[in-house]
Amino acid sequence: MTLIKKIKDKKVNFEFNKEYIKVLTDKISNNDAVFITNSFKEMHPADAADIIEHLSQDNRESLIKLNEFKIDPEVFIELNESIQSEIIKYLSPSSITRILTNLESDDAIKILENVEEKEKNSILSELPPKDRFALLEGLSYPEDSAARIMQREFTAIPSNWSVGQTIDYLRENKELPEEFLEIFIVNENFKPIGTVPSSRVLTTPRESKMLSIMTDSPILVPVNMDKEEVGNLFENYNLNSACVVDKNDKLVGMITYDDVLTVLKEEAEEDALRLAGVGDEEITDGVLVKTKRRFNWLLLNLFTAFLATWCISLFGATIEQMVVLAFLMPIVASMGGNAGMQTLAVTVRTLATNDLTKNNFNQNILKEFNIGILNGIIFAIISSFIVQLWFQDIQLSLIISISMILTMVVAGLFGILVPVTLKKMSIDPAIASSVFVTTITDVIGFVSFLGVGAYFL
Amino acid sequence: MTLIKKIKDKKVNFEFNKEYIKVLTDKISNNDAVFITNSFKEMHPADAADIIEHLSQDNRESLIKLNEFKIDPEVFIELNESIQSEIIKYLSPSSITRILTNLESDDAIKILENVEEKEKNSILSELPPKDRFALLEGLSYPEDSAARIMQREFTAIPSNWSVGQTIDYLRENKELPEEFLEIFIVNENFKPIGTVPSSRVLTTPRESKMLSIMTDSPILVPVNMDKEEVGNLFENYNLNSACVVDKNDKLVGMITYDDVLTVLKEEAEEDALRLAGVGDEEITDGVLVKTKRRFNWLLLNLFTAFLATWCISLFGATIEQMVVLAFLMPIVASMGGNAGMQTLAVTVRTLATNDLTKNNFNQNILKEFNIGILNGIIFAIISSFIVQLWFQDIQLSLIISISMILTMVVAGLFGILVPVTLKKMSIDPAIASSVFVTTITDVIGFVSFLGVGAYFL
Repeated sequence: MTLIKKIKDKKVNFEFNKEYIKVLTDKISNNDAVFITNSFKEMHPADAADIIEHLSQDNRESLIKLNEFKIDPEVFIELNESIQSEIIKYLSPSSITRILTNLESDDAIKILENVEEKEKNSILSELPPKDRFALLEGLSYPEDSAARIMQREFTAIPSNWSVGQTIDYLRENKELPEEFLEIFIVNENFKPIGTVPSSRVLTTPRESKMLSIMTDSPILVPVNMDKEEVGNLFENYNLNSACVVDKNDKLVGMITYDDVLTVLKEEAEEDALRLAGVGDEEITDGVLVKTKRRFNWLLLNLFTAFLATWCISLFGATIEQMVVLAFLMPIVASMGGNAGMQTLAVTVRTLATNDLTKNNFNQNILKEFNIGILNGIIFAIISSFIVQLWFQDIQLSLIISISMILTMVVAGLFGILVPVTLKKMSIDPAIASSVFVTTITDVIGFVSFLGVGAYFL
Repeated sequence: MTLIKKIKDKKVNFEFNKEYIKVLTDKISNNDAVFITNSFKEMHPADAADIIEHLSQDNRESLIKLNEFKIDPEVFIELNESIQSEIIKYLSPSSITRILTNLESDDAIKILENVEEKEKNSILSELPPKDRFALLEGLSYPEDSAARIMQREFTAIPSNWSVGQTIDYLRENKELPEEFLEIFIVNENFKPIGTVPSSRVLTTPRESKMLSIMTDSPILVPVNMDKEEVGNLFENYNLNSACVVDKNDKLVGMITYDDVLTVLKEEAEEDALRLAGVGDEEITDGVLVKTKRRFNWLLLNLFTAFLATWCISLFGATIEQMVVLAFLMPIVASMGGNAGMQTLAVTVRTLATNDLTKNNFNQNILKEFNIGILNGIIFAIISSFIVQLWFQDIQLSLIISISMILTMVVAGLFGILVPVTLKKMSIDPAIASSVFVTTITDVIGFVSFLGVGAYFL
C-alpha cells in the first residue's frame, strides 16, 4: 500500500488501520514477528508508529517483547512521548542502544529526555564512548535550549573553495548528513560567515567561487538560545536551516526547519491547552494520569470559587431582602469572565510571538480600556433592557448597568496586565493567568452587582 | 546593522527600534524618502516590515504616500494582513501592480485575498495578461485549498536523465525558482514519480541515473486538499516540499515547508483564540474592529447567562427559604465549566491533529466518563468538607456532593461529545463548542444544586 493511494483515498487508509489492527493483534498472539516486521517495512515510519499507538497496551507490550521483532529506530522516534516511555520499559538494554546509535543526535536526546535519571545512566553506560560523549554533552544544556534541538551533523566548507571543488568534496566525503538544505561557509576559526542553499550550488557554474554566491551575515543561533526564540527567528526570517555556534562563535551544530516546526506548533498548542488548565496532556495518557494533570487547576478553581462565595455571603441580608439579585448575579460575573478571557487569549499569543513589546504596550492597554468601556456600555444597555422587560424594576436595571460597565473595564485591563506581569516575573503567562483573571472578574462581578444593589436598597 | 548583532544582543535590537522609529518619523515629516529607502535596504525585509507596523497610522500613511518612496514587495509581504489592507488603500494602482508582479504566485494571491472584490478586479485588470491569468486561476480555488498556498514555479525533469545532465540543465535554465529543496522526477504525462533532494544530487557522481537515487512514491497533494490537511501531511511525514497535482495527477505546483509552517502555526493559534471567543484578531486592529470581533461571542454568552438566571429563578422559593444556597450555587457551576473546558481544549487539539479517530473514540469517551466520576468524587469530598467546616450543616454538604459528581460527569462527557458532533456537522469545533459546553455545565450545575436542595428542604 503506497502513500499515494492512502492520501488520495482517506477512507481506504482509515479502514485499513482498523482492519490492520485486528490482523496485527492475531499475528502478535501467534508470535509472527516476521509478518509484522515486513509489513512495517513497507510503510512510512510515521504510519507504522501510528498503528503501534492504536494498539492496546497489552498488545503493544507483547509485540515489543516478541523475540524476533526489532522496532525500527525511525518508527520509534515517530511515536508520541508517552508511548515512547512505555515502550522503553519493555525494551532490552541492547535494543535501546541499537535505537540510540542509529538516530541523529537531536532525536536521540529527545528520547533520553523522557527516561528516568537512573535508567538514563544505565542506558548511557551501554553506548559506545563517542555516542555517549555526544549525548552527555547535549544533555548538559538546558532543556529548552537550541543545543537540545540541533544536530551535530552538518556540511561546512572553507571560504576560498569554488563550486567545483565543493561538489567534488561532497561526492567523495562519506560522513555528511543524509540531507542538508544549506552549506555553511566558515572562516579559519570555524565561524560561519555565509550560507549557500544546496539548489544554488546546482545552478552555478563549476568555476564560480562559493564566496560569490553565498548569502552573507547568516543568523547565528547561540547554543543557549531558548528554542521558542529559535522558532520565532525561523518564522520571522523564513529560514530553512541555521548554524548553531558556541560562545566563541564556532560552528557546533545545525537546526533545520522540521525541528522548529514541532517547537512552534507545540508552543501554540500548549498555550491553548494551558489557558484551559490542561498541561502537556497526550491522548494516550491513562485516566489516572489525565486526572492528575487536571487536578491542580480544578483545586485552585475550587478555592477561588469559595472566595467568590465568601464575597457573596457578605451581602446575605441584601439577597434575603431581594432574592431576584441572586438570580441575576451570575450574569455580570460570567460576562466579565468571558471578556477577560478574550483579552487574555489575545495577549498570551501576542506575547509568545513577540508582537506585544514595550513600543506598543501603552497603546494596547489604552485599547483594552476603550474596548472595556465600549463593551460595558453596549452590554449594560442590552442587559438592562432584558431585566426591565422581565422584572419591570428600574432600580434593578440600573444596578446591572453600573456593575456591567465596571466589570467589563476591569476584565479588559486585567486580561492584559496579568499575563504581562507574569511574563516579567518569568512565569509562563499561559499557565497561571486565567485563574487570576477569572477570580478578579468573579469577585468584581459579584461585589459590584451586590454592592450597588445594597446601596440602592 | 547586521542581523547577527541584533540577535546576539536583543536589547540593542529593541532600543534600536524605539530610537529608529523617532528618527524615521522625523524623516517622514521632512519628506526624506532617500534616507528611508536606503536604511530599509540594509535590513532584512521582516525587520523593515516590523518597523512599518510600529509606526502610527498617520505616519504610515505619510510614508507610503511619499513620492520618492517605493515599498519593496519583499517588505510588503512580511506585513501582517490588517496593515497590508490599510496600505493598499494608500498605494497607486501602478505600485500595486509592481508589488504583485515581483512576488511568487502564492504570495501575490495572499495579498489579493484581503482586497475587496471591486478593488481586486481593477488591480487585476492592470496586470500583464500572463500574471493576471495565473492569479485568477489561483483565486478560482477554494480559500483553504492547497492551490492557494502552492507556487507555480518548480523544478521537474524527465526520469531518464543522469545526475550530470540534470546539473547541466539546472546551470543553463534561467527560469527556475530561486530556490528548490527537491527536484521532481516526472513521467511522460508529467505525473511526479519521485523526488530527489537537492543535496543528494550534489553528493552523487555525474554518471548516476536520477532514477536510481530518487525517493519513489512521492506524496501527491491534490490541488483541492484542505491546507490544514496539507499541514498535517508535512508534519506527519517530515516533508520539505511536496508536489501538487491536478485531477489527472499532472504536476501543477509545489508547496514548501515555510508555507505550511504558517498554516500549522496559525491553525493552532486560531484554536487557542477561538476557544476563548476571539476570531482572527490582530494586534494592529483598532478598538472598533476588536470590539466587533469579540461582540458576537459576548452577546451569545449574555443570552446563555440569562438562561442560567431563568433556571435559578425557578428555585426562588428554595433560595428565600435558605439564602446560603445562593452563596454556594456558583461553586458547582464554575467547577463544571472548568472541567468541561479542560476536556474541550484537549478534544479540539486532538481533532485538529487527527489523533482522535473512530478507532479510539469509544475508548476516549469512556476515559472522560471515568475522569468525570473520579474528579466528581474528589471534589465532592473536598467541597463538602469545606462547607461542613463553614456552615456545620450536613444536609448542605450532601447537596453540594451529589451535585458536584453529577456536574463533573456531564462536563467531561459534553466536553468531548460537543466538539466531535460539531466536527461531524462540518462546523469548526473550536469556534462553537465552548458556548455549548459552558451553557450545559452552568445549567446542570445550578439546576442540580438547587434541585437537590429543594428536594431536601
